[in-house]
Amino acid sequence: MIICKVVGHVWATKKEESLEGSKLMVVEQTDTYGDQSSAETFVAADIVGAGIGERVLVVTGSTARKTFGRDDIPIDAAIVGIIDSLEIDRHK
Amino acid sequence: MIICKVVGHVWATKKEESLEGSKLMVVEQTDTYGDQSSAETFVAADIVGAGIGERVLVVTGSTARKTFGRDDIPIDAAIVGIIDSLEIDRHK
Amino acid sequence: MIICKVVGHVWATKKEESLEGSKLMVVEQTDTYGDQSSAETFVAADIVGAGIGERVLVVTGSTARKTFGRDDIPIDAAIVGIIDSLEIDRHK
Amino acid sequence: MIICKVVGHVWATKKEESLEGSKLMVVEQTDTYGDQSSAETFVAADIVGAGIGERVLVVTGSTARKTFGRDDIPIDAAIVGIIDSLEIDRHK
Amino acid sequence: MIICKVVGHVWATKKEESLEGSKLMVVEQTDTYGDQSSAETFVAADIVGAGIGERVLVVTGSTARKTFGRDDIPIDAAIVGIIDSLEIDRHK
Repeated sequence: MIICKVVGHVWATKKEESLEGSKLMVVEQTDTYGDQSSAETFVAADIVGAGIGERVLVVTGSTARKTFGRDDIPIDAAIVGIIDSLEIDRHK
Repeated sequence: MIICKVVGHVWATKKEESLEGSKLMVVEQTDTYGDQSSAETFVAADIVGAGIGERVLVVTGSTARKTFGRDDIPIDAAIVGIIDSLEIDRHK
Repeated sequence: MIICKVVGHVWATKKEESLEGSKLMVVEQTDTYGDQSSAETFVAADIVGAGIGERVLVVTGSTARKTFGRDDIPIDAAIVGIIDSLEIDRHK
Repeated sequence: MIICKVVGHVWATKKEESLEGSKLMVVEQTDTYGDQSSAETFVAADIVGAGIGERVLVVTGSTARKTFGRDDIPIDAAIVGIIDSLEIDRHK
Repeated sequence: MIICKVVGHVWATKKEESLEGSKLMVVEQTDTYGDQSSAETFVAADIVGAGIGERVLVVTGSTARKTFGRDDIPIDAAIVGIIDSLEIDRHK
C-alpha cells in the first residue's frame, strides 16, 4: 500500500458501465510522514468514505479490483483505509 | 487509474489476431489538473469513444484486460472514462 | 522481492473490513547492501514478526495477496522474510 | 502497451524449459513519435515476426503471459504488433 | 524480462514457510549490453543454477510466481535464463 493524501474529485459522465456509482478521488502519494505531497498523482476508487485532505492507504493493481469482489470492474487503485497516525523511527 | 490526454492514433496491420477491431490511441499522462502533458506516453485501447485532445481515465495491467471480458486479449492499458471535470483542493 | 528496512507503524481505525488484525508496517527500500535507506516508502503487511530497524524481504503486487491465502484481501505488499545477512560481490 | 524499437537478440542456452522455441528480442522504449530510443531496455518474446529496427507494440506483466495461451510460461513482455504509422496531434 | 547481473546471495532464517529451499540471489538490472550495472537492485529466486557474475534473464510480478507452478509462493522475481550472448544493432 502507498500513503497518499486525498486532493480532489473527478467527474466522468461517459464511462465504462460498471464504474457507475463509484466514488473516484484524486490522490497524491506523500513522503514517509504522510505530510508532504509528491508529484505522483492518480485516481482511486474510495470504499471507506475518505474526504479531501485526509491521509489514506491506497492499494494498486489487481488487488484494487479484487477488493470490490468483482473481477471485471475497471478499477486499478482503491482507498482501503484512513490513516489515524504514523509512527516513524529511522534511527533504530 | 491515471489521468491522461489523448494525443494520437497508432496503426498496426501485422498484429496479434485478437487485437483486430480494437481502437488503439496514443495517450500521455498529465499532472493533477489534467492540463500539462508529461513525458509518460503509451498506447491504450479505447472502449468509451474518446477523441484526440480529450482528458481520459486509463486503467493499466490485468485490469485493462479484464475490462474487455476476455482474459487472453493482449491489452494492458484501456481508456475507461472521459473526464468532464476535476476539482482539486490541496490546501485542506 | 525488494530489500527494505522497517521504519515504522501505521494505524487506521477506519479501514476495509478484511484488513482487521493485519500488522501494517512502514518500510523503505534500501540499496544493495541493505544499509542506506532510499526515498521509496510504502506500507507492507507483516507475516514474519519483523521489528523496527530490521532489514526484510518484501513482495509486492498480486504475490502479496496470494501469500495470505485469500484472493480478496486488500494487501499489495507483504514482508515475507527477515534478512540475516547479504553477501555482495560486484567484481566477479 | 508501450511503443518500442527492436534493437537486438538475446541467446540463452540454459533456460526454463517452457521458454524453448521462444524468439527473445531486446527492445527499447521510444518517445511518442516512436523515433528516439530512451534508456528503458528489456527483453520481449516476439509472436508477430518483428525484425531489428522495427517499431512495435509491447505488452507487459500478466498480459504477456496470457497472450501465449499458457499461464505458466515465464514471459512478462511480448511483442504483439508491428507499427505501420503513428499520428500525433498535441495541439487539440 | 529484464537483463540483470547476479551480484550476491541473501540469507533469511525467519521467512514465510513456502520459501524454504528457495535459492535467493541479489541481482542488479544492467544496460542494453548487459555489462554496466545500474542502481536497480532486488532479490530473485533462481531456478536455472545461476552463479555470481553471470548475466541472466529475470521475470517479475505474477509471472515469477507462476513459473514455480504454485500460485501461493511469495516470490515476485525469478531468474529464468542465463544469457550466452546479446547481439545489439541500434543503427537499423
